[in-house]
Amino acid sequence: MDRKLFETLQSLFYPTNAAVVGASTNPVKLGFQALLALKTGGMSGKIFPISPSLAGKTVLDLPAYGAIEDIPEPAQLFVLAVPHDRIEGALVSAAAKGARGAVIFAGGFREVGGEGAALQARVKETADRLGIKIVGPNCVGALNLPYGLNATFGSPLSQMKRGRVSLISQSGGTGSAILTMMMDNNVGVGKFVSIGNRVNLDFPDLVAYLAEDKDTDVICLFIEGMDDGRAFLAAAKEASKKKPIIAYQAGFTETTRKLALSHTGSMSASREVYSAAFRQAGVLFVADYEELVDTAKAVSMLPPMNGPGVAIFTHTAGPALIVAQTAEEAGGTLPDFTAAHKKEIEGFAPQFTVPTNPLDMFAHAWFDTGMYLKAADLALSQPDVHLACACYSSGIDVGIRFPAAEFAAVAKKHNKPALACLMATHSGNGVVELREADDAGTPTFNTPHKAGRTIANLIRLWRMRQGRG
Amino acid sequence: MDRKLFETLQSLFYPTNAAVVGASTNPVKLGFQALLALKTGGMSGKIFPISPSLAGKTVLDLPAYGAIEDIPEPAQLFVLAVPHDRIEGALVSAAAKGARGAVIFAGGFREVGGEGAALQARVKETADRLGIKIVGPNCVGALNLPYGLNATFGSPLSQMKRGRVSLISQSGGTGSAILTMMMDNNVGVGKFVSIGNRVNLDFPDLVAYLAEDKDTDVICLFIEGMDDGRAFLAAAKEASKKKPIIAYQAGFTETTRKLALSHTGSMSASREVYSAAFRQAGVLFVADYEELVDTAKAVSMLPPMNGPGVAIFTHTAGPALIVAQTAEEAGGTLPDFTAAHKKEIEGFAPQFTVPTNPLDMFAHAWFDTGMYLKAADLALSQPDVHLACACYSSGIDVGIRFPAAEFAAVAKKHNKPALACLMATHSGNGVVELREADDAGTPTFNTPHKAGRTIANLIRLWRMRQGRG
Repeated sequence: MDRKLFETLQSLFYPTNAAVVGASTNPVKLGFQALLALKTGGMSGKIFPISPSLAGKTVLDLPAYGAIEDIPEPAQLFVLAVPHDRIEGALVSAAAKGARGAVIFAGGFREVGGEGAALQARVKETADRLGIKIVGPNCVGALNLPYGLNATFGSPLSQMKRGRVSLISQSGGTGSAILTMMMDNNVGVGKFVSIGNRVNLDFPDLVAYLAEDKDTDVICLFIEGMDDGRAFLAAAKEASKKKPIIAYQAGFTETTRKLALSHTGSMSASREVYSAAFRQAGVLFVADYEELVDTAKAVSMLPPMNGPGVAIFTHTAGPALIVAQTAEEAGGTLPDFTAAHKKEIEGFAPQFTVPTNPLDMFAHAWFDTGMYLKAADLALSQPDVHLACACYSSGIDVGIRFPAAEFAAVAKKHNKPALACLMATHSGNGVVELREADDAGTPTFNTPHKAGRTIANLIRLWRMRQGRG
Repeated sequence: MDRKLFETLQSLFYPTNAAVVGASTNPVKLGFQALLALKTGGMSGKIFPISPSLAGKTVLDLPAYGAIEDIPEPAQLFVLAVPHDRIEGALVSAAAKGARGAVIFAGGFREVGGEGAALQARVKETADRLGIKIVGPNCVGALNLPYGLNATFGSPLSQMKRGRVSLISQSGGTGSAILTMMMDNNVGVGKFVSIGNRVNLDFPDLVAYLAEDKDTDVICLFIEGMDDGRAFLAAAKEASKKKPIIAYQAGFTETTRKLALSHTGSMSASREVYSAAFRQAGVLFVADYEELVDTAKAVSMLPPMNGPGVAIFTHTAGPALIVAQTAEEAGGTLPDFTAAHKKEIEGFAPQFTVPTNPLDMFAHAWFDTGMYLKAADLALSQPDVHLACACYSSGIDVGIRFPAAEFAAVAKKHNKPALACLMATHSGNGVVELREADDAGTPTFNTPHKAGRTIANLIRLWRMRQGRG
């Protein structure tokens, strides 16, 4: 990508210092919440609260300033928590203090038409002239968690697990909901951008940037519609050669197309048009943001799947059947175990075990979880097996745990991916069990459908890589 | 259905007294867990622990007996926590003590072939001769929560919310996983049957029974394969005239068909064959058990949807777009508000509000939640609007709540269904918020996809009722 643009975005996501214009001491004001978010993020640089009423005071233990002109050092990122009619002036002053990036929360621009659209055009002209890239307007801001940057008005986002999954969302509401789900599912998040009305920062630039970003392994997108689909597809095609891109889209149907237009002022096409175009660009297209979250988790934690072969191990056949079916419907295969492996399996598995794939080792394996490790080790040594999946019911209340760390170690030995369907209640102890299994290195999903769907997407990503040769 | 069969099943699900054969004082034994489950269920009748080693002792404060012959009163239900080779004898003794139903947990029957299949044939012959209906073998048992019956070996199931959703599952593991998900999602459960190998109790009889059961409003099925699809479809066609039936199926693909055969000894057909046959029988066919759980919750809590018209209200447009799209893709419509209603909406909604459906009332509605009630009241008064859906982000951490009770009351006034997408984290406070909204009468889903998919299924159920004229 363009070097100058890359450097500008680096300054936006890794600012030495940052400022909040419109800072406030009133907790119900955006200007307070934005300052709190920035502070709890923990970035190493200075944070400057700015507001005429706060000159000479301190807010959240930070010295405040009456005007942008008064801050004692340059800042690269300005969070503008002021109404739409004060944005242009703020940009001019910020530029004089070194601004390369700005976050604009306010609405009242293109999405309201007429005067708002004219104002947005003027803001774009101003920002472009000053060399400032804008996140928003009409958005919830941006995150760069590995750097400790929380440029949103949601301080709880600072507590998210830090990782290498990045998300660009056209809708702030849906973006926040996706982050919440990532939080619930222990997904480590890198960067997040709520692009809102997209004054001069849109999907193509951000996709190209994240493809080069050393802190991102997986790029996730939530799209409502685009002004320039061609530019996006060109950028995605290049980026998908470097990193997996997963996209979820809404706004296909007639009503929702109209709504998307009024929401962030963009047009959208049909599901078929997007689906075909995305596939050509190497973008994995998913049907739900839960699927986006699950798949991103697996992709960010595991080596890629280098073929369609899946081996499934369980103590409870029914759920294994669901995983198997979901993988097979996506073109996955369930290779037979070799004659030698079958013999070994019969050596440690309980009476009546049929050494097929999926391998059901009955309730015995629920107690004697080492059977999972032995079986996975054998299966993953087969060249036709490219992923191992364990199906296990929570045993937390009786003190039994699925050996997630050991299972991950077996997979690592073979340099192949392994994941688990761990059927546990999604509240109370079950959540702890799921999180601990993730943290031990085995991405874990609480239903067989989710595990199977994730495997299906790993297979699709492999096929797309194959397609590129 | 046959009166004699109905009465037999009534005795099985509403036994005056019940016995556990193979009871134990050892907590790692099935015979202890089964007794504990029965006791924690809280049924009003007597519970008889039976084991040669326990004669004259008490277990869990219950007087125990050395043999079936020794119990002092008749029992209608016998939970047989003994190995496969002791089942035939137990059935004969139990029949003499009034048994009409028996639960058999043990494996070692048809699913292992050869001798096991022969044993199962003998057990069937014995049970049929004695007039006993059998749940299992190779299963996790049965529940009738409104009666306090927990005839499984899982005492935590006694804590489930009691309600009017009943489930028949061919797989014990998947059945347990579905119950866990129902627990997580505040679904009120009535009856549950893990049918396992189906000696003489299978889908057709149970579907016909639940259709007549006064304690069941919705029938849910998890199917792996069937011996007699024709009999099932005939029973389902009759039952679906009385109550909604929702089915989830696994075992379509080649590998999973083989696995289903070895799992519970049944054959299965392709997804297409099932899908078409089920539709003709009036059965709603879903793609995932989470979808089963979500849909069952809505159906059990709400009046039916009597048309395709959906009205959506939000403070965050992006998620509303997802709900709208999912509903529209299922044939739903989003009727315009009438000119008079548009005027009223402009009267209370904030500046820039465009009075379209979905209706976005911006962050103002997040604080001033009364806007949701006013908008829903107007929309539901339109004959072309058949369901109201609210999209709302959790506000729990700042003390704001979606007015779930008031929203339900508005819908009730119009005798139309209303539900909510409440985007909250699925752990901690968020779970409480979701549960309280459910309990207040508004079925609540934590993602727009889930809410939209549920609406789509309510529309499909309406169409199926239409099809029946």
